[in-house]
Amino acid sequence: MINIVIDTIGGDNGAEFCVKGAVEGTKRYKNVKIFLVGHKSEIDSYLGQMEYDKDRIEVVDAKEEISPNEAPVKAVREKKDSSLVVGLTLIKDGRADAFISAGSTGAILAGGQFVVGRAKGVKRTPLAHLLPTSGEPALLLDCGANVDVKPEVLLQFAEMGSIYMESVCGVKNPRVALANIGTEEEKGNAQIKATYPLLKDSKLINFTGYIESRAIPYGKADVIVADGFVGNTIIKLYEGLSKMILKELKGAFLSSFTSKLGAMLIKKSMKNTLKRFDASDQGGAPLLGLKGLVVKIHGNSKEGEVISSIRQCVNFVESDVNGKIIKGFESYEEE
Amino acid sequence: MINIVIDTIGGDNGAEFCVKGAVEGTKRYKNVKIFLVGHKSEIDSYLGQMEYDKDRIEVVDAKEEISPNEAPVKAVREKKDSSLVVGLTLIKDGRADAFISAGSTGAILAGGQFVVGRAKGVKRTPLAHLLPTSGEPALLLDCGANVDVKPEVLLQFAEMGSIYMESVCGVKNPRVALANIGTEEEKGNAQIKATYPLLKDSKLINFTGYIESRAIPYGKADVIVADGFVGNTIIKLYEGLSKMILKELKGAFLSSFTSKLGAMLIKKSMKNTLKRFDASDQGGAPLLGLKGLVVKIHGNSKEGEVISSIRQCVNFVESDVNGKIIKGFESYEEE
Repeated sequence: MINIVIDTIGGDNGAEFCVKGAVEGTKRYKNVKIFLVGHKSEIDSYLGQMEYDKDRIEVVDAKEEISPNEAPVKAVREKKDSSLVVGLTLIKDGRADAFISAGSTGAILAGGQFVVGRAKGVKRTPLAHLLPTSGEPALLLDCGANVDVKPEVLLQFAEMGSIYMESVCGVKNPRVALANIGTEEEKGNAQIKATYPLLKDSKLINFTGYIESRAIPYGKADVIVADGFVGNTIIKLYEGLSKMILKELKGAFLSSFTSKLGAMLIKKSMKNTLKRFDASDQGGAPLLGLKGLVVKIHGNSKEGEVISSIRQCVNFVESDVNGKIIKGFESYEEE
Repeated sequence: MINIVIDTIGGDNGAEFCVKGAVEGTKRYKNVKIFLVGHKSEIDSYLGQMEYDKDRIEVVDAKEEISPNEAPVKAVREKKDSSLVVGLTLIKDGRADAFISAGSTGAILAGGQFVVGRAKGVKRTPLAHLLPTSGEPALLLDCGANVDVKPEVLLQFAEMGSIYMESVCGVKNPRVALANIGTEEEKGNAQIKATYPLLKDSKLINFTGYIESRAIPYGKADVIVADGFVGNTIIKLYEGLSKMILKELKGAFLSSFTSKLGAMLIKKSMKNTLKRFDASDQGGAPLLGLKGLVVKIHGNSKEGEVISSIRQCVNFVESDVNGKIIKGFESYEEE
């Protein structure tokens, strides 16, 4: 049985979508048990309206909430009865394999580090995101968990990202690229130049060299490695720029009667295209290298995202990503 | 008289557009003299077909070409008779104030540093770009000239960018922001945290704090400061992502008869919107902090870009940007 914790506090849409997603998840995946953590009476009242397998959904009470405005480390240390800390403790205690939350990213990162802890051999734990591209989605890591890192840490990010992409997303022999400002070997800052030979020599990955940010949207790599500062800059610009361009185009469509009519006719094909840029079907952002899988889903997530994330956790556990990471990193230590 | 050099070699469209742009530029700006540097016979043959003021256009012969594939520093050192080196030498010798080229960015950066040299007090010379936003364009610097820089260098970038934006682009009291991965004061890597207090204390700028990359497309700042690695990542992702989204949408429009019809109706309003995202009307990318202005225009530039860049050079010289930079930096040294 795969045990998955769902944090029902912290999302913009309340606990209901977590409960609905959990019930549907247990229907689709027969080897899954879900712990719903949060305000017990509220969760119970939603469950009371649904039919579900009582052996595979368990409610765990937690009374405190962590808001996005709180200092993450302090909140995690002090709020022992928050849904986040109670839920992550289930992983720490070996009662659960994975944890899903729509709460504050900072608190989830801090909780992952301090409550769950790193898997054996892992130096730092990166936050990874699947980016939509004109080809298949690409995994970008680190998206902001670690800002000042050494080349050996970037090497581990590359290796963990590659294992995740192959095992969870089913990409065979994923192309791993290092984010840089040029593609020639001598390009880049000191950190990137020192990282290049490490990735080139790694036996765990299929390293294809540098990638410039302009090539990322075209799906030229399956795993893109960057430190948390550069990765966070990329993911947030991706989000901001896509939204801005679509907003401007919508504004343009409404500017005249003719274009309004035209917009009605292109609506369907445009919607299909934009759906590809929608992250909700691709599961949440995994925090890798911990003793279990921690997944951050969007604050405005609904049932669909919860179900996708459950599938992601199932793949993660069934394909033994952490076992592969630990084994991979061990082989270096033995040398 | 303002003396401007135009490098006629290195653009994708050949020398003709430079010659046409130069002739039109001298018609629009009566206080401008232009040096056209490159293959003399070719330039003369284009000039022979046009009417122009012979006192204000001078052809300077240069026989060598620098290709984008050459190592920039080596090329600049060895190819003394390249249009780039010959043209930049006109600034070094005090015969010209500004230089415009569609050639290789790397060679232009190297030439600026080694041939022209830095203005008094300037530590490093950043490459700046105007980014289109949903509001007014924002100046991003450094876009890739300096990858590992100290906080004091980022401070100078902020100050030079602010002076340029106010003097050349006419933005009163420009809002200067530092690119970061969060907006709270404690966010960021070591470099950014050390830079924050310097920008806060600067008397030369209107510092508005950190800006996240997701806010850049919405025009939340007039000047955005970053090191060359982060700045280059931003500008190239801006370019790559915009192109990819528009390509995908065009593909979607052609996917059915209905959407093709719709696309015809929205064509005009969409074109107007996209025109705002077109950099050609905003002049080229200035390399700041040199003894003269060096402007890099797109490789695929045409007359329009050359004329815009001539206007940019005129504004730069008339508003005495370099005088302001030198005076600003002097005031620090006096303290």
